[in-house]
Amino acid sequence: MPSRPDADDPRLGDLSEGRLLRAILSRTAPATHTILGPGDDAAVIAAPSGSVVATTDTLVHGPDFRLAWTSGYDLGWKAAAVNLADIAAMGAQPTALLVALAIPRDLRLSFVERLADGLRDACAALAPGCAVVGGDLATSDVLTVAVTALGDLEGRQAVTRSGARPGDAVAVAGELGLAAHGLAILFDSFRDGGSPVPVDPARLAPGESGALSAQLRPVPPIGLGRIAAIAGATSMMDVSDGLALDAGRLAAASDVTIALRRAALGDEPNRALRGGEDHALLATFPDGVLPPGFRIIGEVREREVDALLCDEEPIEIRGWDPYRDWDSISG
Amino acid sequence: MPSRPDADDPRLGDLSEGRLLRAILSRTAPATHTILGPGDDAAVIAAPSGSVVATTDTLVHGPDFRLAWTSGYDLGWKAAAVNLADIAAMGAQPTALLVALAIPRDLRLSFVERLADGLRDACAALAPGCAVVGGDLATSDVLTVAVTALGDLEGRQAVTRSGARPGDAVAVAGELGLAAHGLAILFDSFRDGGSPVPVDPARLAPGESGALSAQLRPVPPIGLGRIAAIAGATSMMDVSDGLALDAGRLAAASDVTIALRRAALGDEPNRALRGGEDHALLATFPDGVLPPGFRIIGEVREREVDALLCDEEPIEIRGWDPYRDWDSISG
Repeated sequence: MPSRPDADDPRLGDLSEGRLLRAILSRTAPATHTILGPGDDAAVIAAPSGSVVATTDTLVHGPDFRLAWTSGYDLGWKAAAVNLADIAAMGAQPTALLVALAIPRDLRLSFVERLADGLRDACAALAPGCAVVGGDLATSDVLTVAVTALGDLEGRQAVTRSGARPGDAVAVAGELGLAAHGLAILFDSFRDGGSPVPVDPARLAPGESGALSAQLRPVPPIGLGRIAAIAGATSMMDVSDGLALDAGRLAAASDVTIALRRAALGDEPNRALRGGEDHALLATFPDGVLPPGFRIIGEVREREVDALLCDEEPIEIRGWDPYRDWDSISG
Repeated sequence: MPSRPDADDPRLGDLSEGRLLRAILSRTAPATHTILGPGDDAAVIAAPSGSVVATTDTLVHGPDFRLAWTSGYDLGWKAAAVNLADIAAMGAQPTALLVALAIPRDLRLSFVERLADGLRDACAALAPGCAVVGGDLATSDVLTVAVTALGDLEGRQAVTRSGARPGDAVAVAGELGLAAHGLAILFDSFRDGGSPVPVDPARLAPGESGALSAQLRPVPPIGLGRIAAIAGATSMMDVSDGLALDAGRLAAASDVTIALRRAALGDEPNRALRGGEDHALLATFPDGVLPPGFRIIGEVREREVDALLCDEEPIEIRGWDPYRDWDSISG
């Protein structure tokens, strides 16, 4: 259902790169930290505290999203959100995004305009002051969005994965398992002969729309990363591949054992342990410290035989692995 | 011709993301400016002068390279070089690269290892102290390398495209048209029924190997960007889409006319005007200033009717446009 006549909505193969760039850049917001914005060979971003935090994460059509389920706006929003979460997980303030788009030539201009809107709105909602400062356009048969996010530590040390200490509380901010629930709904209810079909809201059970939204337009607690760092988080990371896998990584990096309490993992603890893509913040805090938005889910102990326990039982450290878990045939 | 038995060289679809990451990271070099390197949610890079220069550029299999012509090493080298050139064009010192790889599952591990070697060696050769500090791995049917480069201005202002002033000399450092010559050799001599076939060095005429090398493993004058800035360049940019198009962009951004001299454009002035991908540095300098490595090719004038002249004749402002010039069928 195109939102405007095709004559007003050319395919990208019929546009020059300059025309497409202008269409995208006219939709970006001014960024607080930008010294020189888009349009030159590179952008210049303020790094007042003398260092810059940088991360990159890519969404590829097929393994990471399906156009039948994901609008241009959703794709832009999610590409921003997942990268902002990695900056937040260091305790930093996001300052800028760079966006490399590889786009099929038969895609419509309106899709890319909405993608730019999603990027802009996610920044405005999740990390005010951060905006797209640069990018690159390429053609590809596979729609690919590679975003790089930059951030500023405001003079603090980065909060890494390796600082958890025995006696710390293990806490989380944000959802656990909700995005995976949304993905399960898509795979279970919105496929026809294995192929994705558009979501029909009338076919959603009560409560399912929240899960779908968490999958398609995640709202990670970006601002709480900085708050956790100021409060004294000893370690922190973004839960992108499921709590079990990511808590296992944090335990390994810190050389400790993390003991989780199942009752603290919500109504669907297995989904909370295995489901990825929520981009919650997992952090450890000294005894007695718990900043707003975080809830305690366990404790840090001296390293035992097993790096990860739940109700004192060892937990297999696994989650989503794009190389093992994705099959372009069975999709 | 695989360099080792297939049993020792698994396909990427048979590896975990962790295994592949370790294989890549074991091949990165330490970076002078890195405060926190790969392995956490994000990297932390020094930005001692309080700002960071950032750019991103993507190479997509098909429009940007062909595996029959391009080794993993070449691809890594070129992905680094084209991004380093954009940092240099701002007058900055490259400090770090982030690399987002989207890789088909049937590609061999050795290809990605050699790609990492090419990234490392290009940094070491072109921008010592700069190295890969982070990245992302995704699967895709289309091999895609999106690199983000960061740089430091060392307290100087960025040299933009908009500062050229009437009376300035127009100068260039690096090759003009050589990479396009290399591409023409590939298309003319190393295809079979339209499909790329590997280069046979025995079939190259004298002088052609240099052109091929310029196309596959470009050596832009990265260090001269900083030198030009210190010398007082009034404007600068990277010539990636051909001199005519890029000089036209600089003239438009500066609201001036650029008058080139054909005799200064080498033995193949048309190729120099239209050929892209050399990543030479185009800069303007005040009268009497010409830093090492630059040669004068014209002058800046008050804006006339035409923004770009060559021997006083108007030149059409066009060059390589990935949206118009690439056709995945005719290739």
